[in-house]
Amino acid sequence: MQVAILGCGQLARMLALAGMPLGMRFSFLAENNEDTSAVAGLGLVVPMSDSDRAEDLYEALGRPQVITVEREQCDVTRLQQFIQFCPVHPATDAFYRCQNRWREKQLLVDTAVSHTPCLPVRSRAELDAAVSQFGYPLVIKHTEQGYDGKAQWRLHNAGDADGFAGQAQWESEPTDRVMYLAEPRMAFQREVSFLAVRSIQGEVRFYPPTENVHESGVLLHSVAPAMALPANVLEEARQGLARLMEHLNYVGVMAMECFVSGDQWWVNELAPRVHNSGHWTLQAGLASQFENHLRAIAGWPLGSTQLNGAAGMLNLLGIELDQKTQLEDGASLNWYNKSVRPGRKVGHMVLQDADTDNVRERLLRLKQRIYGQD
Amino acid sequence: MQVAILGCGQLARMLALAGMPLGMRFSFLAENNEDTSAVAGLGLVVPMSDSDRAEDLYEALGRPQVITVEREQCDVTRLQQFIQFCPVHPATDAFYRCQNRWREKQLLVDTAVSHTPCLPVRSRAELDAAVSQFGYPLVIKHTEQGYDGKAQWRLHNAGDADGFAGQAQWESEPTDRVMYLAEPRMAFQREVSFLAVRSIQGEVRFYPPTENVHESGVLLHSVAPAMALPANVLEEARQGLARLMEHLNYVGVMAMECFVSGDQWWVNELAPRVHNSGHWTLQAGLASQFENHLRAIAGWPLGSTQLNGAAGMLNLLGIELDQKTQLEDGASLNWYNKSVRPGRKVGHMVLQDADTDNVRERLLRLKQRIYGQD
Repeated sequence: MQVAILGCGQLARMLALAGMPLGMRFSFLAENNEDTSAVAGLGLVVPMSDSDRAEDLYEALGRPQVITVEREQCDVTRLQQFIQFCPVHPATDAFYRCQNRWREKQLLVDTAVSHTPCLPVRSRAELDAAVSQFGYPLVIKHTEQGYDGKAQWRLHNAGDADGFAGQAQWESEPTDRVMYLAEPRMAFQREVSFLAVRSIQGEVRFYPPTENVHESGVLLHSVAPAMALPANVLEEARQGLARLMEHLNYVGVMAMECFVSGDQWWVNELAPRVHNSGHWTLQAGLASQFENHLRAIAGWPLGSTQLNGAAGMLNLLGIELDQKTQLEDGASLNWYNKSVRPGRKVGHMVLQDADTDNVRERLLRLKQRIYGQD
Repeated sequence: MQVAILGCGQLARMLALAGMPLGMRFSFLAENNEDTSAVAGLGLVVPMSDSDRAEDLYEALGRPQVITVEREQCDVTRLQQFIQFCPVHPATDAFYRCQNRWREKQLLVDTAVSHTPCLPVRSRAELDAAVSQFGYPLVIKHTEQGYDGKAQWRLHNAGDADGFAGQAQWESEPTDRVMYLAEPRMAFQREVSFLAVRSIQGEVRFYPPTENVHESGVLLHSVAPAMALPANVLEEARQGLARLMEHLNYVGVMAMECFVSGDQWWVNELAPRVHNSGHWTLQAGLASQFENHLRAIAGWPLGSTQLNGAAGMLNLLGIELDQKTQLEDGASLNWYNKSVRPGRKVGHMVLQDADTDNVRERLLRLKQRIYGQD
């Protein structure tokens, strides 16, 4: 089976490496001169320019039986043009909804899934309304830009609000287009992500919830399974994710990042794709998120999502490759074949152990070994 | 790190797929017009002819930092020529010893490792001596040809012995060269293989012993861990394997196939490479035999060899690819990208479960699903 992936980053790389043993072959569609080093040697890379016809791209990709996508920021109109040639999974609507934070919020409203409250900010007046509703600190997010904590502003007082208003790109006329949204700063205790895979037939399987630690807005490490969640949170979150996937007629892996505080929980963000918080699934002896995404979009039976024991993942952010040090203590390494720049995600490591306490302890030691003592 | 592999079959393929996440790049040396489809797309394939200079081949392979081998039947003289350019692991002597059954037996004698008794058969007189020593049934094996049960003869009576003697290629003069050897047919209960990895520093790690079922001389399925072995067997076998590896100054993964009967055991065959009976390590959440072989030859720390729960492996012999059926029941698939011919190893499947009883039961169902009811 020939599979084409839109995007040439590490997620495309790990999808391809997981799919080859399943008898798949891959090709990759590169957008906007993107760096393709992560998929070098794993299949044909086809550069896409605005003038290319979908038919020609489809031919150049080797007439794939299915097309999938490694990132939510993609050209949905472009993607839709391929549907006449072969299935595109997940559904293009999932990308349309998730690539804009405001539309994503509306999707969560439509499916009655708990989420952080928010208000649109299209003008100074709406900014003031958000301040009066949520108070400070107030979090402003660009609806279409930014990931890993970029294109976000934290307003602690009226001065910050004036500062943001002064640099914001307001539309000159009232508009439906929401470029910024405002959220209260949530007083949450934990960040937990839920990962599920849905087959073409509508079967949904959940991976164990994963506990995430972000630093400066970037995922640094994860542990699965997450510490015991109140039964209502686990149940509601899983039902919510299943509802979202069904609503979108979603096929493949989807991630739902949540804030949890006691028995309350709110979706912070959706990712219509395999997700960094699920990278531990690669080494923990079940079907990885990459394998299950591919099984789903190919119409094949899903693999196991059940973890025995516990797993921990540490991202390598701007860290040079040094297997001699990195592979100590039974750690697994996944290197993305990208050039190293400060803070850039260039790989990740996975530890496995009998329980989460052991994993946490070893993860801490690993983090110190990789990032130093600070 | 650039790694070159001599050989282009499924073992080379699985090594490459395991090494890419570790930051390795691969090239492959193809012998005698061998089929290279299993490694297509995974790195440069360099054909080797007798007239090629080692230096030119080394350059063509991209100046690898280390060279390894996927099969014992390789040109050892050829291999030794590369040592002036980069390390070759495992040591070429391991191939020299193991590619001839008589030399392999002498190696087992030298290291005092229990093995099936045998006698050289260089003449009709030596054949008769073997019959009188071991009786019928007598097993004759070509010392340099044959694997998976080929180039072997089972003699049940004097007529069989005459038949074999009539077609045997005896040397016309007495010689030290042993072309055939004779073994008694061992009355063993179980076939168990031991798999270990040895680092450049001499650290040895053992995978759990694996129980194998052969049909018509070909490995059909394996279960790990093997049913409880008498303590002396486990201990002696592991010590024997460690002794062999040390004696050879071996770096990488080595397999030792044994017959076991009660508390007696005998080495049947050695394999100086990753081995079919260790394929289950790919999906069971530890460092696979492929990953550990690469870690060892690169001089990196070894990964875990400890299995939680149990795993079963079924070879796909002459079976067409059909993921929809094959991936049912949580099975993992590893397809080698080779064309299908009757009886040819074209892939394998792995099951995991909490214990070996469950694995055995599911393996039986899987075997029936794949091979039919017979």
